[in-house]
Amino acid sequence: MAEANTQSLLGEALESVVLVKLRGGIYVRGKMKSFDQHLNLLIEDAQEMVEDGTMKSLGTIIVRGDNVILISPTPK
Amino acid sequence: MAEANTQSLLGEALESVVLVKLRGGIYVRGKMKSFDQHLNLLIEDAQEMVEDGTMKSLGTIIVRGDNVILISPTPK
Amino acid sequence: MAEANTQSLLGEALESVVLVKLRGGIYVRGKMKSFDQHLNLLIEDAQEMVEDGTMKSLGTIIVRGDNVILISPTPK
Amino acid sequence: MAEANTQSLLGEALESVVLVKLRGGIYVRGKMKSFDQHLNLLIEDAQEMVEDGTMKSLGTIIVRGDNVILISPTPK
Amino acid sequence: MAEANTQSLLGEALESVVLVKLRGGIYVRGKMKSFDQHLNLLIEDAQEMVEDGTMKSLGTIIVRGDNVILISPTPK
Amino acid sequence: MAEANTQSLLGEALESVVLVKLRGGIYVRGKMKSFDQHLNLLIEDAQEMVEDGTMKSLGTIIVRGDNVILISPTPK
Amino acid sequence: MAEANTQSLLGEALESVVLVKLRGGIYVRGKMKSFDQHLNLLIEDAQEMVEDGTMKSLGTIIVRGDNVILISPTPK
Repeated sequence: MAEANTQSLLGEALESVVLVKLRGGIYVRGKMKSFDQHLNLLIEDAQEMVEDGTMKSLGTIIVRGDNVILISPTPK
Repeated sequence: MAEANTQSLLGEALESVVLVKLRGGIYVRGKMKSFDQHLNLLIEDAQEMVEDGTMKSLGTIIVRGDNVILISPTPK
Repeated sequence: MAEANTQSLLGEALESVVLVKLRGGIYVRGKMKSFDQHLNLLIEDAQEMVEDGTMKSLGTIIVRGDNVILISPTPK
Repeated sequence: MAEANTQSLLGEALESVVLVKLRGGIYVRGKMKSFDQHLNLLIEDAQEMVEDGTMKSLGTIIVRGDNVILISPTPK
Repeated sequence: MAEANTQSLLGEALESVVLVKLRGGIYVRGKMKSFDQHLNLLIEDAQEMVEDGTMKSLGTIIVRGDNVILISPTPK
Repeated sequence: MAEANTQSLLGEALESVVLVKLRGGIYVRGKMKSFDQHLNLLIEDAQEMVEDGTMKSLGTIIVRGDNVILISPTPK
Repeated sequence: MAEANTQSLLGEALESVVLVKLRGGIYVRGKMKSFDQHLNLLIEDAQEMVEDGTMKSLGTIIVRGDNVILISPTPK
């Protein structure tokens, strides 16, 4: 599986709930519906979890890819 | 819907009111009228919401795309 | 008007007074005379407004595009 | 071995446990399953080690390459 | 004059004294002798003006373009 | 030797012990075994020297090039 | 001399002693032996001058170009 491209890495997480860690201490959780080659993400039922513990419902959001640190599928 | 490009992701939010989170703790809210492939945005009736709670009317603005963290359609 | 490029977005603000918000808490106000595809701007009768409230006349200036956060036409 | 490309450098660490140091004081440890030309990484059984000493199990994660500082195979 | 490229914008300031504002609170003043497409600048009789008010003569310097915030012709 | 490319600059340091200064106050010392055109480095017997004076053995590591500030061959 | 490229700007400083100001408050002084199109520099008899006034001999070093703020030939 070496040398896989970004698309194939991300394709495995489509339609599942992911936790996305962004620069600036921002966490977003929701269902990943789509992505493109810049790692821009379309996330449904998104919730922003700020590091002070607060949560905010955002609905469907578009995340700009260059803020992404890591994407983690979350336990069901 | 995997591997969609940025344009198709953003197209769904055109002409609706969006909340745009920018780097540096800046939030802008307004009607998204246009965008390009760099995520530069043209926003109408824009209001800047600084984190200290103040709001400022900006009219129509152009946001440079590389400051965008996420774009969220807001509830009507 | 979807998928417009940067040039057409900016063209609407040419020859009018704009407020440009730059990274690092810098605001510049003046008449936008020209721009290029990097969002480099040529601004006439420019005034820098530092966040502590001071203003400084700069004459005609060239702003490097990658410092731009947003461009806002100002009320007459 | 001079002038090897990124792929050949990283290929030697595939399927082994690696410690990945990211910007912002973030350490991630886990089995490197895949990578692409942007240094995006697919890591299995990943654990995030924050600098205050806490650990968090993340399962399989995708790390965006431009956050990577260094990748180190760890002792068995 | 819309859609002018960077070269034509900068050409108007050649051989005149400019004030260059750089990232990190650095100001450089001197005669702009040359530039290239990256906004790298060759400045003669350059003086660095640190924000604490000190000045330092640097002679002829080369400024790397991606540190430039804005370039301003100074009054004679 | 003007206008040499990155590869020829770095080739002179191959197989010798180098001190690599990285962004964020990180120093890594070890034998440079390989590099590519992005300045990604493969370093053997690497030791990280944090600025508080502590050292940590890392074995063979891959350093992502865009964190590199400077590379210095060390005295034998 | 307008519109000169980076190479011709830097060629004038080859084989002479330069003071290089880097991001993060780092100054390096030494004889510039070579450079490439990314502003990567090969500097001989380099000395790092940290802002607290200390100096450190580094021998021959390679400086990664995107850390460079400005390059200044020093008085003989």
